[in-house]
Amino acid sequence: MKARVHVMLKNGVLDPQGEAVKHALGAIGFAGVDGVRQGKVIELDLADGTDEATIGQMCEKLLANTVIESYTIEVL
Amino acid sequence: MKARVHVMLKNGVLDPQGEAVKHALGAIGFAGVDGVRQGKVIELDLADGTDEATIGQMCEKLLANTVIESYTIEVL
Repeated sequence: MKARVHVMLKNGVLDPQGEAVKHALGAIGFAGVDGVRQGKVIELDLADGTDEATIGQMCEKLLANTVIESYTIEVL
Repeated sequence: MKARVHVMLKNGVLDPQGEAVKHALGAIGFAGVDGVRQGKVIELDLADGTDEATIGQMCEKLLANTVIESYTIEVL
């Protein structure tokens, strides 16, 4: 089975990477870019029957820094 | 309007970050992780009416390195 995990910085946490992308898009001529947030997407190829709780533990223990990042799990 | 862009390494391109995550998951006790690919997710806050073709240009010019990365656009 496959699962996809999105890890994004929480709202209110400064995202310098996103800010850099926003300014760069403006600099190369794309107007109207009001905000950019950049995060990670992790695609996991797991043994069949792995439950969402286990994937949640992977996020808590390794994939996300839950102090500043939030994660969402999507089983494909 | 909001749009989300996923940028992943193309199949066949070595993904050392994903491999590192895979080994780390195994090392902390998660069995059955057969593969991990890590990519970027970019959430864009754009002027209303920005069409998908424009977002495609942003990807081609800045957000993705299309030699080794593929991207998908999702308008939210």
